[in-house]
Order: sequence, then structure tokens, then C-alpha cells
Amino acid sequence: MKEFFKVKTSDEVFAIINEFPVGPTEEISLTEGTGRILAEPIISPEDMPPFSRSTMDGYAVRARDTFGSSESMPALLTVAGSVEMGELPSQALSGGQAYRILTGGMLPPEANAVVMQEYTQQVDETTIEVMKTVAPGEHVILRGEDLKKREEILSRGQRLRPQDIGALAAIGRQKIVVHQKPRVAIISTGDEIVPIEEMPPPGKIRDINAYTLWAAILENGGIPIYLGIVPDKFDDLHSKCAEGTEKADVILVSGGSSVGSRDFTAAVFESLPESQILVHGISVSPGKPTILARAGKKALWGLPGHPASSMIVFWLFVRPLLQRIGGLEPQIITHSQLIKARLSRNVPSAQGREDYVRIRIFRDETGYRADPVFGKSGLISTMTKAQGIIKIDMNTEGLDENSLVDVYLF
Amino acid sequence: MKEFFKVKTSDEVFAIINEFPVGPTEEISLTEGTGRILAEPIISPEDMPPFSRSTMDGYAVRARDTFGSSESMPALLTVAGSVEMGELPSQALSGGQAYRILTGGMLPPEANAVVMQEYTQQVDETTIEVMKTVAPGEHVILRGEDLKKREEILSRGQRLRPQDIGALAAIGRQKIVVHQKPRVAIISTGDEIVPIEEMPPPGKIRDINAYTLWAAILENGGIPIYLGIVPDKFDDLHSKCAEGTEKADVILVSGGSSVGSRDFTAAVFESLPESQILVHGISVSPGKPTILARAGKKALWGLPGHPASSMIVFWLFVRPLLQRIGGLEPQIITHSQLIKARLSRNVPSAQGREDYVRIRIFRDETGYRADPVFGKSGLISTMTKAQGIIKIDMNTEGLDENSLVDVYLF
Repeated sequence: MKEFFKVKTSDEVFAIINEFPVGPTEEISLTEGTGRILAEPIISPEDMPPFSRSTMDGYAVRARDTFGSSESMPALLTVAGSVEMGELPSQALSGGQAYRILTGGMLPPEANAVVMQEYTQQVDETTIEVMKTVAPGEHVILRGEDLKKREEILSRGQRLRPQDIGALAAIGRQKIVVHQKPRVAIISTGDEIVPIEEMPPPGKIRDINAYTLWAAILENGGIPIYLGIVPDKFDDLHSKCAEGTEKADVILVSGGSSVGSRDFTAAVFESLPESQILVHGISVSPGKPTILARAGKKALWGLPGHPASSMIVFWLFVRPLLQRIGGLEPQIITHSQLIKARLSRNVPSAQGREDYVRIRIFRDETGYRADPVFGKSGLISTMTKAQGIIKIDMNTEGLDENSLVDVYLF
Repeated sequence: MKEFFKVKTSDEVFAIINEFPVGPTEEISLTEGTGRILAEPIISPEDMPPFSRSTMDGYAVRARDTFGSSESMPALLTVAGSVEMGELPSQALSGGQAYRILTGGMLPPEANAVVMQEYTQQVDETTIEVMKTVAPGEHVILRGEDLKKREEILSRGQRLRPQDIGALAAIGRQKIVVHQKPRVAIISTGDEIVPIEEMPPPGKIRDINAYTLWAAILENGGIPIYLGIVPDKFDDLHSKCAEGTEKADVILVSGGSSVGSRDFTAAVFESLPESQILVHGISVSPGKPTILARAGKKALWGLPGHPASSMIVFWLFVRPLLQRIGGLEPQIITHSQLIKARLSRNVPSAQGREDYVRIRIFRDETGYRADPVFGKSGLISTMTKAQGIIKIDMNTEGLDENSLVDVYLF
């Protein structure tokens, strides 16, 4: 089998990932929308606010009635009434009139600005002095100034942040259509793996990766489905994978770092209906022995067994696949969790592959310092001690001490 | 009341926030632990791995038996057996012997290194040539190399990431003690506010902030509890706040941006048992009219009514309070969601207060460009169009075009 598959670059893998179809949608209530991926563009059905409102306590006026006024030359206006909160002002403003108004109050017809309380002085019960010129629109949110009728206010494929939920509330949307969360099955393989509740007998080890992957799926908006541990037997793994394709959109087969078990995982993937091996080896370290296959529309990953490798492959490749299936449009800011830091020492790297180096971050007087966490990718502790990773490009031989690097935080 | 309260700086407010007590803890199962705040230090009860394991397919050897060997001068070793995955090797290695082993296999006693398959050659059924010198520990994870018995592997107060969940799985922890999620009540005030399912009559407006805050609480690990809209009546707000202190750890009273309603909110807070106004005005913009009070151990916030102000105050001050109550220890990286960008134009700022300016980010050939989103803080659209904010210090008059700024993403 190895003869037929050339190791792929990460860019080639990303291109393959982007050919998986975007998943189905569902309607949910707005209060469940936080962090979900919008599956419809949102058009404002009305002007927001639907009326011009004051943003200050003071007096609603016609701006031109204040032109030229100052502390030494105040304008005199007649207080024609007061706007009650949540009430429609009873009549339009005439020239030379003002209406008492509070923050949030609706401007009477003909009023187009608000003079702040502190720039006015009460002369008598119905007269005020205005000691400042106000411009049209000052201290006012005009009708439609926030959202215009028929304007697209949110886009299909964006992740809903608190302010987006607020904008949906503003236009009265109680239900929204979002992409379904991708369901991700986890299968652990390996005769040496035991459930975590067992004390491993000699030669066996607890199923770390199922838990790491479970949490990584949750953190990336997926629904994890744990299908358990299967021994290194073709039929067992085949039936678990078949179960996975029934229950999930993506199947992660964790373990099988040995050459034999890798070929075995690939053979199982190939035995599924409508299946095709898409990737068999990626030129990254750690993570080289990664397999990606499809069975119909379902994606199957063979992940390296080493905990650190497995997590880094998840972060690099599985996460973008979940975003793809989950309908997330590529954002302007794709790597939001990124800081610049200075390397504390030289980091060697082999040419011809991308290297990912775990990083511990310290803050010193010069800013952030990036300490590489060296250690075998079989050690989960190299990941718990790290706060992020740096990428060393394929054509770079290594990085020098003090060079400025992008640290992707996790 | 205003006479008694000087406007506070944000640092003064942070100091007050840090005097609120950390909340209670609860025991949960490991699979529920993602993103939760650990309330106990985690000590490894055993060496991990509990045995020395191979990280490659090849032969387990005594490293000294390979010293000096090379392609031109291979060492000859006797294959004494094979380690089955998950099995205890039956006997110790003698001098000049090798054991066939796969990735993850347990090293036999006396073996201390693994020679990769590709550096060996089969001579006959029981003899191999080793064409490379291996060092002790090479291609092996030694017993305790990942986690040492009695080592503190995770700290109290840290947020559990996928790798941390993996480390807990490695030591067999099925239950963990975490801090309870802070419960946060939301009360909307204002005679002009209507529920979002209603078409607002003239002069009224939908309850945007309750939804924005709901989502912001969820995103920051809290449990939102919506208590509804109350009119601007002392008794109504008083009884809602009393209900809030029964049901929640933190009460957010949203609305009341007018001077009168601010004083009214403060008066209600003061009327609660064991209450004290702690902050009445903060020297930030937007967000100046913010109130913080306590009633016993419960925190009450009077948030500005403008949607953008309300969100920024949440981000600046309520979020750190939730982190405090939720037990999160201040991290080395406190602002992980931060990118450096160049300002696309001058931004003015008043001295004597911190200004927070909403930012839209674009990527161009020189890196990230930060476009200020100007607009009134009453406009939710200024937040939906923004991807982050920048801070302009109290003693800065403004920022020049092209200056490099830290953009905090939200």
C-alpha cells in the first residue's frame, strides 16, 4: 500500500479537507445560539432603532434654534413639554421650543438633536437658556442609524458572538438557522490500551487519547461520541468503524503508531463501502503517520498513537475539517489565539517537513519569551507544560535564539 | 449620593473585584471537565508510564551492545524473542540479545534502548545485524519519564484544556473537583424596554442587552439566569434584585443610562440587606456610569444601557469578576486573544480617562490593519462590525496613524 501513497504536504491536506461537504442545518432558539455557526444571512426587517432616540438626559431641540449660542450668548427656548420614557411624544416641536427628554426617550417630530442637561439653565418654569450650539443628530440615535431595513447585518457561516446575539434580539429574531454540530466518533485501538478506570496490568496503558480528543472535540464545537477500545483485530475495527459511519460525521481512530497497525487501519478504512484513502502520511512532525480516508461523505482519520502527536494533528487538521463540516466560513482572523514571542534558544529542524515545536511562554521585561518544550511526542506532560506551538516551515533549517516567532496558543 | 462617590480608575475597580470571595467547588466526572477550573492540585499517584515503552518498531536492546556499530561494522545480536503488545516480556535480556518490539511495547528487563527496524538486517532466523549505535533511552519512554509519582501535574485554579484532561486520564482520575460555575442573574430595567418577541410600539425598544449579556455570561463560563424586565419603580427593582441575590452570585442590572435611573439603581442596591456601594462611576469610555455594589457576598452591577457600553463593561470588569468567583488563577497569558495591528488613522482621546475604541481588522500586505469603528455606543452594529477593541491609556491624548496597537479580540 505504501507504494501508492506519497506523503502529502499540509497544504495538500487542507485542499482535500475543503472538498468534504458542509453539513446540514437546524433551527434553534436564540438563547441557544452562542458560539454556533449561522447558516442563513440575517437581513434587518426594519429600521433600528425604529424611532430617533436620545442618548443623553437633556432637551430635545431643533438644532438650528441653538446655532450661535454660547455661555455668554445663550439661546432662550420654551419648554413645551416632557417626553415620558417609552411614550410617544404628543406633538411636534415648533420653532424655539424644547422638550425635556431622558436617555432612551423618543424624539418628538421636528426635533433633530439633544442639548445635554449641563449646558442648559432653567430661567423660569417654561423657559431654558441653552449655552452651547448642537449639531443636527448630536446626542441622538437617528431612526435606522443602527440597522437599516433590508441591510445584511450578519453573514452565513459566521460564528455568533454575544454582540451578534444582541443584534438578532434587536430585530426580534427568536429562532435562527445554524449548522448542526459535527458528530465525531472516537475509537481507541491497540491491545495495550485499557479503560482509564482500570489499573493497567504490566505492559498496558490507560486510554489517554480518547479523553484528550473528547475534550478537543467539545472545545471545537463538535459532539464527541466515544465508541470504546477495540483490539488490533480487523473484524473488530471494521465493525466499529462501520458503527462510526452510522453515528457520526467524522471518525477518529486513535492509536496504531506502529507501521503494522497503520497499514492495518488503512486496510480497514479501505474495506468500508464507498471508501477511498485520501492521505497516507503528512510531511509534518509530529504527525507524519496520519491517515485520512472517506467512506461516502464521512471522514475517517487514523491518528498517531502518541498523545502529543495526536493532539497536534487534531489541532492542525481535524479542527479545520470540523470547521468545514460545521459551516464556518474562513475568517479574516483565522488564528486569533496567537502571540509574538522571542525564542529563548536555537531550535533545530529538518528540511523537507514542517516541524511543530511545543512552547512554554514566560513574560519578562522585553515581552514574551518562548521556551521550547523538548521531549518525546509520547509524553502527555510535554503538552500540559506547553501553552502553545510554533511552526517551522518546510524549507527552514531551524530557528535562531531571539528570533521573533508566532506562538499559536492552545 | 454623587457627592460621596469619586469616579474610580479601572485599576481601583480591579482591586475591589479581587476582594470578592472565590465561590464553592463541586465534584464532576472527567468527561465534563473540559474548560472547567480545577479546584484541587493534581498529584500523580504513580510513575507514568508505569513501565518503559518503545516509541518505534524495531528491537529492544542493551544500548552498550550496539556501541561502535555502523553500516560497515554492524553488531550481531541474537533475537531471543518478541514482545507482544500489552504483554509482559517473559524474561530479561542477556548480553548480546535483542527482542523484537513494536511501538508501545514494554521493554524487557535489562533492555534500555530500541534500534529502529530500518537500521537492522535479518541474517538468519535468530540473528540480526545492527547498523547503528543507539544511546541509552533512545526510542524509549522510560518509566516515570512522562509523570513522576508525587509530582504536581496540574495546579489549582487552572482551566482544563484537552491535554490536561488527557493527563488526568493517564493517572486514572475519573472524578475531579472544580469550581462551580458562577450563576449570573440578568435584570433589564426601563419603561421603554419590551421583550424581543413583541413588536415594540412607538417609543419602545426591544431588550437587546439581556441577550448580549446572556451570551457573554455563557462564553465566560457562567450560568445565565434571566429574571425579566422591570419597570422603573423602586419596589419592583428592589424585589427583583432580592430575587437575584437568592438565585445568583452576581446580579447584572442592565439599563438605566439616564442620570436619574442610575441614582435609582444605586438606591435600590443600597436598600438590600448587608449592602454597600463600592463603585459609582469608572473613568473609562464607554462605561463611565457603571455601578458596583455588594449585598453580603453577592455582587451587583448597574450596567450602562447602551448596548456597546454594556458589552465593553462586561468584558472589562464583569468578566474578571466571574473569573475571580469562578476560581481562575491569573494566568501568565491573561490576554490570549490579542493581535498586533497598525492603526489606519489617527484616533483622538480625552486625557483623564481610558478610552476603548472598537476595531475592525483587515489583513493587507504589511500585516494586520486596525480600522477604528466610530459610532455611538448605543449602536449594537458598532459591535457586530468590530472584531476587537484597543485601549487608549488615561494619560495619552490619542494614537497616531500607523502606530502599532494591541487589539483584544472578541
